[in-house]
Amino acid sequence: KATMAPILLNCMGNDHNEYIKQQVHVKNPNLESMEEDVLYHLSLSTKTHNLPEMFGDIKFVCVGGSANRMKAFSQFIHQELKLPGNPEEISDICEGTDRYCMYKVGPVLSLSHGMGVPSISIMLHELIKLLYHAQCRDVVLFRLGTSGGVGLAPGTVVVTDKAVDYSFRPQFEQVVLGKVITRSTELDKGVANELLQCSSELQNIPTVIGNTMCTHDFYEGQGRLDGALCSFSNEEKLDYLKRAYEAGVRNIEMESTVFAAMCYACGLKAAVVCVTLLNRFEGDQITSPHDVLVEYQQRPQVLVSHFIKKRLGKAV
Amino acid sequence: KATMAPILLNCMGNDHNEYIKQQVHVKNPNLESMEEDVLYHLSLSTKTHNLPEMFGDIKFVCVGGSANRMKAFSQFIHQELKLPGNPEEISDICEGTDRYCMYKVGPVLSLSHGMGVPSISIMLHELIKLLYHAQCRDVVLFRLGTSGGVGLAPGTVVVTDKAVDYSFRPQFEQVVLGKVITRSTELDKGVANELLQCSSELQNIPTVIGNTMCTHDFYEGQGRLDGALCSFSNEEKLDYLKRAYEAGVRNIEMESTVFAAMCYACGLKAAVVCVTLLNRFEGDQITSPHDVLVEYQQRPQVLVSHFIKKRLGKAV
Repeated sequence: KATMAPILLNCMGNDHNEYIKQQVHVKNPNLESMEEDVLYHLSLSTKTHNLPEMFGDIKFVCVGGSANRMKAFSQFIHQELKLPGNPEEISDICEGTDRYCMYKVGPVLSLSHGMGVPSISIMLHELIKLLYHAQCRDVVLFRLGTSGGVGLAPGTVVVTDKAVDYSFRPQFEQVVLGKVITRSTELDKGVANELLQCSSELQNIPTVIGNTMCTHDFYEGQGRLDGALCSFSNEEKLDYLKRAYEAGVRNIEMESTVFAAMCYACGLKAAVVCVTLLNRFEGDQITSPHDVLVEYQQRPQVLVSHFIKKRLGKAV
Repeated sequence: KATMAPILLNCMGNDHNEYIKQQVHVKNPNLESMEEDVLYHLSLSTKTHNLPEMFGDIKFVCVGGSANRMKAFSQFIHQELKLPGNPEEISDICEGTDRYCMYKVGPVLSLSHGMGVPSISIMLHELIKLLYHAQCRDVVLFRLGTSGGVGLAPGTVVVTDKAVDYSFRPQFEQVVLGKVITRSTELDKGVANELLQCSSELQNIPTVIGNTMCTHDFYEGQGRLDGALCSFSNEEKLDYLKRAYEAGVRNIEMESTVFAAMCYACGLKAAVVCVTLLNRFEGDQITSPHDVLVEYQQRPQVLVSHFIKKRLGKAV
């Protein structure tokens, strides 16, 4: 393969071990012997696409639930990095499927993952294989999301310290062939602290580091009183949220534990950056005006964009 | 409210109890006292939309993962029911959000739910509240999906008998305020048998009734050897699939248990109709040509469309 040549050159000499360490790993020995790898839900394949050529220069991967939001982020980062070309013309790399959307802007990949652990899990399996096939190095991943706040003013950005489950444990339960195994949800502390430093250099991006609780539904699992099913009282809800707060939880969303667990298992540096849309101690419904919500949702984008610009030496 | 009048008339007389029984229920006493109910992920609200007027005549709700596929289904059922108007002009009722898409064609509502239990769960909470606010009656719900087959030829349609979890148990585990509760995943046997009868009246829709296993991921949980993470052998995979087959499992997908559980809890008749895209005993990757996969995905649509036409007295 012609695309192997520059990689092989990089492998020579003293930097070999360091180089190997920074490559994107998969934890699956079967992949090497596969003649073709179809990344079905991304509508890409090792046979039909030259993945090293298309994606080999990726250094930052930003993922979020909403396809529209991740397209907006790709256009925003295009402007921020002052790249040539028209940001309006950035096209969806996964246009062969409507499962996910993917946009590439220089060294930044922006893609959507839908809602919930299973949806982001499918995307992450195929994304990590993509980064591996493309021989990417030194990649940092960010989840940019929305969340319910726990004791915070709406609009606060939470950079996740520990991603925790419904019992406030920093772990993710994965079923493998009918057996439940537990994985660590450790995130990169260096990246989190760098993000907090970035927020202090920006106007109007109130940011805290705190624990993020990941649930498997939006209503009963998060203690909402307004779903189609609700069997508990307002007092029981507030008691659960209070216990979460005491365990260090500052926001609730639906993807952080598996995102942290899969990145950690594959040796990828990762951070979770979510804005809170409401304070759950004060209510359940998201009733802020549309333009206020839009501005809130831009805050993680502005923060991560600043981080990327600094890393690339492009921050003013 | 002007829209209440015809409903109140229906409530009079001897049919009162029968009428009440057939209404869509919610299991949440809080909803009655809420001044406004914002169905956030559908971009609808009881204050800004006249839900009884928009949705009061719905009798069939068809849901599926892919937005494109559910739009295609709405256009297909429009033609099949010989309704007036241009099927190309059917518009997305949830255009204010990109979380889900929703199309209404006469008495048929077609909407997307994304991938995985959490994603469909959010949609179902808000859909069931919508049907309740709209005062719908006698509604039947169908999930039309794709799946991996277990010991079946690709292209076979599976109408679900029991929706089972990773241990082949017909139950759904729901976390409520940090505690795990178990819900029944019973589906409507009458509707399932009626669908099987429909398949015998159609050409080229090979259909079986069998159990459907619902997993929370596409790779490790379904025993795939081709994810970014894989810690088991081909033999262990085949052993798990064989045990599933022996427990009556004929296909694997990612939404059926919560769909069955929530419909059952709210007294809604429901069926799961998924086509198999591959036989998992023979492989993991979906490699069939695009046009073959497109034809397979139309089979649940053709089957459910025939069911709807028969119920409406429109079948030839």
